[in-house]
Amino acid sequence: MRTIKLVIEFNGARFVGWQIQARGVSVQGEIEKVLTAVSGNPVRVISSGRTDAGVHALGMTVHFHTPSGLPMSAFREGVNRLLPEDIAVKSAEEAPPCFHARFSARGKWYRYTIFQSLVRSPLRAPFCWRLRKPLDLEALRTAAAAFVGVHDFAPFRSSGCAAKTTVREIFSLSVDTEGDLLFLDVRGSGFLKNMVRMMVGTLVEIGQGREKPDLVARMLAEGKPPARITAPPQGLCLMEVFY
Amino acid sequence: MRTIKLVIEFNGARFVGWQIQARGVSVQGEIEKVLTAVSGNPVRVISSGRTDAGVHALGMTVHFHTPSGLPMSAFREGVNRLLPEDIAVKSAEEAPPCFHARFSARGKWYRYTIFQSLVRSPLRAPFCWRLRKPLDLEALRTAAAAFVGVHDFAPFRSSGCAAKTTVREIFSLSVDTEGDLLFLDVRGSGFLKNMVRMMVGTLVEIGQGREKPDLVARMLAEGKPPARITAPPQGLCLMEVFY
Repeated sequence: MRTIKLVIEFNGARFVGWQIQARGVSVQGEIEKVLTAVSGNPVRVISSGRTDAGVHALGMTVHFHTPSGLPMSAFREGVNRLLPEDIAVKSAEEAPPCFHARFSARGKWYRYTIFQSLVRSPLRAPFCWRLRKPLDLEALRTAAAAFVGVHDFAPFRSSGCAAKTTVREIFSLSVDTEGDLLFLDVRGSGFLKNMVRMMVGTLVEIGQGREKPDLVARMLAEGKPPARITAPPQGLCLMEVFY
Repeated sequence: MRTIKLVIEFNGARFVGWQIQARGVSVQGEIEKVLTAVSGNPVRVISSGRTDAGVHALGMTVHFHTPSGLPMSAFREGVNRLLPEDIAVKSAEEAPPCFHARFSARGKWYRYTIFQSLVRSPLRAPFCWRLRKPLDLEALRTAAAAFVGVHDFAPFRSSGCAAKTTVREIFSLSVDTEGDLLFLDVRGSGFLKNMVRMMVGTLVEIGQGREKPDLVARMLAEGKPPARITAPPQGLCLMEVFY
């Protein structure tokens, strides 16, 4: 048996999310179907984690086991020829037998894109959250800094989250602008269900002046109140998984 | 009668092009339908020019006449509420009666995006032409410089082009890279049918080493041979029309 590691890019617009569901088209389902056809054996992939419906990825990472002796090009070029246009394998490599896409991961980098504009943009809309007024950058950066470190992120997980512990570490959270775009780059050890989108939702409330910058520190210290706003999925992109 | 100038952004993927056709959905058709509904009078828009099926625009400019006394917000926010997601009015302003989107234009800026990568990218594919190997930048820049100035662009128009004269002026053609992306920014007085895409097709042949950099100067001087390659439409974007 060989262990193969794939890095996958996808446009999440059309999918019910990463994970196979009873209904709808999932990224995992599309990939397993093609890997099974190419390798000639049933393939189950293990991912570094799940992404919600509508979330994009530039660097989702998975592994799978296969008895197939095919060259690596079959798992990149060959698989890409059969995958739909909105999914692609960026790299395929043989990994040590102990490699595990989820348990071996040391961290992940997510980017959330906000577009600050009075008018909508057809070319940008599928990849950002549009806000009509510019956010208060200073308030945003003060609040963002409070996320960094080891904290109990219980207020930043959605009700469907089944994680046993809600303690996670955020390595960094940077706020950068480029014209009317604002990028929130979050790097951390791991993330609860909807965690990044709820962090962004809370930061936006602060950036809009509806909440004070110290709200984040208070929520993390007191474990409440739960975040009120979950930023929409199309602004989120899983950039990279670190091993 | 008022003369109103609109700047329009659209994702060209779904359309048969700018112009109304016997079959298929056109950007012009969608806009005229909504402007007619909002103003309560039949509206015909005059554009700065046409774009082919699949070509995008960040700054297509049009004008129209209307007896309507509605405030400008009706022609931006109001119209945007009724337009499909892939078209938006970015600005609406009253123009002098003599303003003409096509005849008043002093020039246009087109950007063509090339993505240099062995593997395809689902997130970038709708907005670029992917080439497997990096182009020779020096050859590309030498050839690009030959386009600048007043020339007879007869070799760079498609067979369906009905323009009376094929003399045009290119103000500038810059070649810039950003990681694995390559941007060709073309500014000129006006463009023949498929002209930018045929210029890019010829530049790519040169950048791939299949033709010499002096081919462009020869084609412009001799009026032949016609460009062999028309770059695909999704890499092209009409950025701005200058007045």
